[in-house]
Amino acid sequence: MDTQKPFVIGVDLGGTNTVFGIVDARGNIVAQDSIKTQNYKTACSFVEAGVVCLTPLVAQAGGIENIAGMGIGAPNANYYSGSIENAPNLSWAHDCVVPLAQMFSDQLSTSNYRLPVRLTNDANAAAMGEMTYGVARGMKNFIVITLGTGVGSGVVVNGQLVYGHDGFAGELGHVRVDHSAKARLCGCGRHGCLEAYCSATGVARTAREMLQLSERPSLLRAKNLDDIESLDVFQAAQKGDEMAKEIFNYTGYTLGEACADFAAFSSPEAFIFFGGLCKAGDFIMKPIEEAYNHAVMPIFRGKAKFLVSGLMNANAAVLGASALGWEK
Amino acid sequence: MDTQKPFVIGVDLGGTNTVFGIVDARGNIVAQDSIKTQNYKTACSFVEAGVVCLTPLVAQAGGIENIAGMGIGAPNANYYSGSIENAPNLSWAHDCVVPLAQMFSDQLSTSNYRLPVRLTNDANAAAMGEMTYGVARGMKNFIVITLGTGVGSGVVVNGQLVYGHDGFAGELGHVRVDHSAKARLCGCGRHGCLEAYCSATGVARTAREMLQLSERPSLLRAKNLDDIESLDVFQAAQKGDEMAKEIFNYTGYTLGEACADFAAFSSPEAFIFFGGLCKAGDFIMKPIEEAYNHAVMPIFRGKAKFLVSGLMNANAAVLGASALGWEK
Repeated sequence: MDTQKPFVIGVDLGGTNTVFGIVDARGNIVAQDSIKTQNYKTACSFVEAGVVCLTPLVAQAGGIENIAGMGIGAPNANYYSGSIENAPNLSWAHDCVVPLAQMFSDQLSTSNYRLPVRLTNDANAAAMGEMTYGVARGMKNFIVITLGTGVGSGVVVNGQLVYGHDGFAGELGHVRVDHSAKARLCGCGRHGCLEAYCSATGVARTAREMLQLSERPSLLRAKNLDDIESLDVFQAAQKGDEMAKEIFNYTGYTLGEACADFAAFSSPEAFIFFGGLCKAGDFIMKPIEEAYNHAVMPIFRGKAKFLVSGLMNANAAVLGASALGWEK
Repeated sequence: MDTQKPFVIGVDLGGTNTVFGIVDARGNIVAQDSIKTQNYKTACSFVEAGVVCLTPLVAQAGGIENIAGMGIGAPNANYYSGSIENAPNLSWAHDCVVPLAQMFSDQLSTSNYRLPVRLTNDANAAAMGEMTYGVARGMKNFIVITLGTGVGSGVVVNGQLVYGHDGFAGELGHVRVDHSAKARLCGCGRHGCLEAYCSATGVARTAREMLQLSERPSLLRAKNLDDIESLDVFQAAQKGDEMAKEIFNYTGYTLGEACADFAAFSSPEAFIFFGGLCKAGDFIMKPIEEAYNHAVMPIFRGKAKFLVSGLMNANAAVLGASALGWEK
């Protein structure tokens, strides 16, 4: 970390809001503001609005000379090029390549100081955040798995994020865990991906399948089949509902078996889980670890830690992105 | 590379022979000799015999001061500790931890010069060899897959071998490709591993299964079912035998689909195949690439190269291990 410059900027660029935060070396967000991501027709006007939003925050930090760097977590982000590439959910970037890092750097730099700006996807930013401020401090080999609407991942090897040859590595949500003819269709257009089973939507889908396949009583039957969400399953499990517990068991087991294959790749010290589904606690974490140790090669058995992120508050994404700002 | 020291020592420690070679910076083996691995009761006597074997070779290279380092490729080798750990096939290391790197370094160093000695498994050594002397020169992200009696792998990310937290990462032969009830038993004791399908023994097994499942004519029926080896399948395919071609097709397809999952992990520039099965050429390489591009996430499609090792001569293992000797 740059001891001369006490702050970094973290940006969580989401489909609805873009949050800008000034972060210190201990992971405290000392100033924060946001803009609406989709209120702008072009990338240029989005960046301009971002700079207007940032200017008072930067002033509060004592000026741009006090900022070591800026990190942006965004969909379809390429770390190497610093660009957002064909992001279907962003009106100003859905059919083009936007060199966002360069654009922000151009706008925020002064004649005396060029601000380094880096860009990566949310899950990679989460992994950087865990390594810089979270439960992965001091670890050189670990995997963060984000369990949200989809399943994302950030892989760290030898203390470095794995970006791969093209900048898009670490898509563990799209490793196939079911090769059979009845494998679920995934949002990526292929079948059997981990994401189709272990995301929040995957949990809801498992619930619908289990409810349809039997007449067993369950608190989940109080709701319309199509309206069931992963939160309903969690609440039912908390009330002791057997089917709800089974749903998390199945989800965790599928995830743990996949992690056993990931161990054969990079043998991480820890798997760190992040996102809404982690709220299910032991309902999901226990079967993950159990399935892992059952399925993994004997040489890896019992070695890996299974942790829940320590950064799961509203600002985790800003913190994660800001960690990129400390990179030399 | 150490421009002051023109040579390295490469050691291929196999179950039968241990080959010692002196290698220059271009990958020429300038001197070579070997001992029988199992003729020694203790690790100490093995190392002593190795040093006796090496002494004239080192003298030929102008003395130990001309050697930048020594690399050893060995089974159950832990890169971090420099030890062989519980190697079932080595009489002097099968129930213990042998600090082989330290032992050789102690014996070969002088009061003026401490020789660095590094140890890794065969597949990782092969990956180092490809990066130093072979088709991966200049690549920073690639995966070497060795197709021999088993399936091994060496994964390179950001120009570094992936050893993982414990030193044993890169076991892609033991990623499960079949989760069904009829998945094949693997040598590691689990079911459905890539190795059970895509090793030389896996190919022979596929041949036996196909021959038993139908009455279709095939040149392979000339042999006893239990005596069929992967070489027979290759020779039959060369003669135009349809079933033999189908066996390689199935093998390549299984491997290509697995590589599609590996891409989601580290998005390599190239997959490099090494070992006996590569002799089958297009019979196996074409289905690998075809299955890969069919199965992989759209974002990775058409990006990866599929290459056969350029180091596939008798000395490839010595060369690969020697590459470790150049590490700083």
